[in-house]
Amino acid sequence: MDYIKNPGNIESRSFEIIQEEINAIRPEYRFRNEIDEMIIKRAIHTTADFEYLDILKISDKAVENIVQALKNKASIYTDTNMALSGINKKVLDKIGCSYTCLISDPRVAELAKKKEITRSMAAVEVAAEEEGEKIFVFGNAPTAVYKAIELHNEGQLNAKAIIGVPVGFVGAADSKEELRKSDIENIVSVGRKGGSNLAAAILNAILYYYFR
Amino acid sequence: MDYIKNPGNIESRSFEIIQEEINAIRPEYRFRNEIDEMIIKRAIHTTADFEYLDILKISDKAVENIVQALKNKASIYTDTNMALSGINKKVLDKIGCSYTCLISDPRVAELAKKKEITRSMAAVEVAAEEEGEKIFVFGNAPTAVYKAIELHNEGQLNAKAIIGVPVGFVGAADSKEELRKSDIENIVSVGRKGGSNLAAAILNAILYYYFR
Repeated sequence: MDYIKNPGNIESRSFEIIQEEINAIRPEYRFRNEIDEMIIKRAIHTTADFEYLDILKISDKAVENIVQALKNKASIYTDTNMALSGINKKVLDKIGCSYTCLISDPRVAELAKKKEITRSMAAVEVAAEEEGEKIFVFGNAPTAVYKAIELHNEGQLNAKAIIGVPVGFVGAADSKEELRKSDIENIVSVGRKGGSNLAAAILNAILYYYFR
Repeated sequence: MDYIKNPGNIESRSFEIIQEEINAIRPEYRFRNEIDEMIIKRAIHTTADFEYLDILKISDKAVENIVQALKNKASIYTDTNMALSGINKKVLDKIGCSYTCLISDPRVAELAKKKEITRSMAAVEVAAEEEGEKIFVFGNAPTAVYKAIELHNEGQLNAKAIIGVPVGFVGAADSKEELRKSDIENIVSVGRKGGSNLAAAILNAILYYYFR
């Protein structure tokens, strides 16, 4: 069995194939700008799903806000350990940004029980109480998206942007529509599709483009 | 904003919606048996992608072997920390199975450097040297799949089954075809699609059906 064994080669060849496929299936397709292109192509790279050409929506200042927040040593909060696992920590460490998933934090379990809310919601409440600028990265929990919008509307979140791409059949699509309608800068996968892997890939695309 | 906040309700309603959607788009579709149904529906639950109805392939004794290996306290090896993150450790702890991702293991870095192979390949080599029955869960690295087949063919792997669902554009589809052609029991996503999230979801479907 003969196969490419160099990870760098695999990635660059993958992105070439993605462009070739776009040329073939959507010759009229144009990216808005280079960073949008990198984000959407990395979404496709992570999922092998070209639907992201159409369903990944990036609000006008989402990337600008995320980049500025990263420069300000913002904290990254994910809704799942899986999203946290997928994020490139080497780059975040280099630029001095912290990152955490609070879902297993004892404070979160306690708050969720006390208030009878999901742990995903409680995790957003606990995050909101912490200092500093925040970027939320949600790939799983619609309830986290709703809770973040609520706290933002009450002036209690300090989120510079939300990567909001929960996957699923109950609440996911609606929560993302609410996020798009909010005045929080956002990156959203419209409809049911998304996931923790996608959430991490979107942040990574930005990290690689600006900070690597 | 009014939304369902009970995680149990969200999951059971999600599976109802998935069946309703299958009835609508593929009324003729039939699952081979109940566990295949649970695996494929959980794949769809994790990705919101109904293509898994057609591309997820489960070899005849894959589930039987995985269940037996789990009962024998097999070790689970994943190719990424993301796949490891997604696996339900509570159930694995209960049944006494260990689980690990060796990608960041110092032995793996050293071996990869020495042999000029990917760390994903080196991780399979290191795993192969460990005692006991093994289940491999690959969501990312075609090179891991190839290396596992090689070691199996040399009688050095002791893998009871491989969940092999790497996503991607270079090597992923081919590696999965090789796995299907091998005599290792396997669960594979044919073509480019797959991912660490899917890999974890497949194992979880089996854990939930037999061990929860």
